[in-house]
Amino acid sequence: MGRIEEIIKRIKPMNEELMEEAQRRLDNLTKPQDSLGRLEELAKRVVGITGKKNPSLRNKVIFTMAGDHGVVEEGVSAFPQEVTPQMVYNFIRGGAGINVLARHIGARVIVVDMGVATKIQNACLVGRQAKFKMQNVIDKKIGYGTKNMAKGPAMTRDEAIKSIETGIEVFEGEYKRGIDILGLGDMGIGNTTPSSAITAVITGRPVEEVTGRGTGINDGIFENKIKVIKKALEVNKPNPKDPVDVLAKVGGFEIGGLAGSFLAAATHRIPVVTDGFIVTAGALIAFGLEPRVKDYIFASHSSVEMGHRAILERMGLRPLLDLDMRLGEGTGACLGISLIEAGVKILTQMATFESAEVSKSIEEK
Amino acid sequence: MGRIEEIIKRIKPMNEELMEEAQRRLDNLTKPQDSLGRLEELAKRVVGITGKKNPSLRNKVIFTMAGDHGVVEEGVSAFPQEVTPQMVYNFIRGGAGINVLARHIGARVIVVDMGVATKIQNACLVGRQAKFKMQNVIDKKIGYGTKNMAKGPAMTRDEAIKSIETGIEVFEGEYKRGIDILGLGDMGIGNTTPSSAITAVITGRPVEEVTGRGTGINDGIFENKIKVIKKALEVNKPNPKDPVDVLAKVGGFEIGGLAGSFLAAATHRIPVVTDGFIVTAGALIAFGLEPRVKDYIFASHSSVEMGHRAILERMGLRPLLDLDMRLGEGTGACLGISLIEAGVKILTQMATFESAEVSKSIEEK
Repeated sequence: MGRIEEIIKRIKPMNEELMEEAQRRLDNLTKPQDSLGRLEELAKRVVGITGKKNPSLRNKVIFTMAGDHGVVEEGVSAFPQEVTPQMVYNFIRGGAGINVLARHIGARVIVVDMGVATKIQNACLVGRQAKFKMQNVIDKKIGYGTKNMAKGPAMTRDEAIKSIETGIEVFEGEYKRGIDILGLGDMGIGNTTPSSAITAVITGRPVEEVTGRGTGINDGIFENKIKVIKKALEVNKPNPKDPVDVLAKVGGFEIGGLAGSFLAAATHRIPVVTDGFIVTAGALIAFGLEPRVKDYIFASHSSVEMGHRAILERMGLRPLLDLDMRLGEGTGACLGISLIEAGVKILTQMATFESAEVSKSIEEK
Repeated sequence: MGRIEEIIKRIKPMNEELMEEAQRRLDNLTKPQDSLGRLEELAKRVVGITGKKNPSLRNKVIFTMAGDHGVVEEGVSAFPQEVTPQMVYNFIRGGAGINVLARHIGARVIVVDMGVATKIQNACLVGRQAKFKMQNVIDKKIGYGTKNMAKGPAMTRDEAIKSIETGIEVFEGEYKRGIDILGLGDMGIGNTTPSSAITAVITGRPVEEVTGRGTGINDGIFENKIKVIKKALEVNKPNPKDPVDVLAKVGGFEIGGLAGSFLAAATHRIPVVTDGFIVTAGALIAFGLEPRVKDYIFASHSSVEMGHRAILERMGLRPLLDLDMRLGEGTGACLGISLIEAGVKILTQMATFESAEVSKSIEEK
């Protein structure tokens, strides 16, 4: 836990003084006060987070963290496990939803293998798919998928700690290349099952209230999924006060990695944007370790997954978008980042009443 | 009315066949079915509107139409009338909210003087503000502001027709330079007052339910604004079945121009995106003239102005965003356009299960 504790200790409060200064500037831009609503709030928070009067979000980065889940052998997903590595290759070739939306907002995508159940072959792609503009996957595999949490802990406590530390390490590696804002994403067949388990344990809500249909399962699989999660909680008895215990017993390698990246982003004063249910479950683990991480997090959208809202309520985060999305990968985070950047540009690029020689409101005179 | 009738006659239904084809493609992209929610709907509608299998929204254009309102002499706004031309100059110099957000999404802004109460001096700016990258205003002034609708009609029936025809003309001029998607915006001190009047007449709702605080007026001005609107409706008795009569008696030159641009966009099969309350009041006039225009309209956001929701409900449009915005100018339209473009790119750029060699859902096999 040494590395994690060290990172957590360095998370500082937001810069309130600069936020007040940003508010004064926002009130003096050529528009009625508060008329850009939440865009203005976003800009102010970015100033408080970064400690910069005129922040720029030029370097937009998405981490898409992939991992497999032993619990799929209980039949909780509509897709076979082989889809996890197939989608990783799709990310590498630039054909997935996350690639399209990252290009749309001008972000770079970093794909991380946190624990896919098969070996990801970076090299062998080069010959066969040379026509695609490819990038490699960062290999941080903690194991070949977690164990089946319905029968015992998904991973050891040491593996849980290592997965969080790895998320920190990935952040720090990319931070050197430049990150002004980070969006997080996930890939892993079966990963709404551990996310629901984590949410049930930490928020104390019944499993039924925090479990959804993931990639789109039928009634039979859905009922089974709820049973499997309940069994996993009975078998493992995770301690709600100990986020690492929860992660180890009913979590996933990519969820640990995401939790670590949230913590590292907060330490380095970089705004970090959630995606759907799995990423937000990672945020909940980070929040359990250090509640102040919340100040650095923006909730991009409200997922169709029921448990997602439960976490956002617990953390006091208000989502920006509600577009009935449930893909994951970081797709929602991309759209959120574009809105945050719009808010920042309003703050830094709009003219003031003075500079544009525009008369103020009668009431403000 | 000849020009308007001619344009309306040419509005065709959406291409249902291509929309079904787009749906099949969306269902075959490497993601669970429907998992990108409303982004997928947006893409499908753009295909139906444009009649193109692989639409591209490269040419993004915003019309910001400005006009003044004689009713301001009744004391209905927090800002003095001089702000309308001052803001037009701000648009020209690129310092307004609309300029910042249009740059953010890569759109060009066309500023149109539909009826500002003073002469807009294009030429005199060149010397003084040569340091700014400027563009001229398109001069389509119908008059130096409307008349005070609390005392009589805001404009003549001929002026109302001319304002709609001018909106068509502006569209057709810019269409030659290239428009793949159009966002509409407004500027005009006092223009929520005619917008509320139009909404009350056409939706049949009480004035109190469709009147808000515009740029941010206090309780006294707000009560007065409601009284003034009621008086305007009593004095003028606009005919709810005749949109041109409503526009003439309680409308505005920029609102007529906006209505014309909605109609022309539909005729040319170009998706057109609403902004806040004033633009949506323009859409309501166009909808009154030809209900099929609705198929071509996307509602970008839900404004803080109460009357806005009343219009969207009447037209059956569901807004994409709810960010507490109430600036106008086309700012909400910009954010909506970016989401629509994201949806279109999902359709046209994502890999299919076959091309990416990804296994399908167990249920779809």
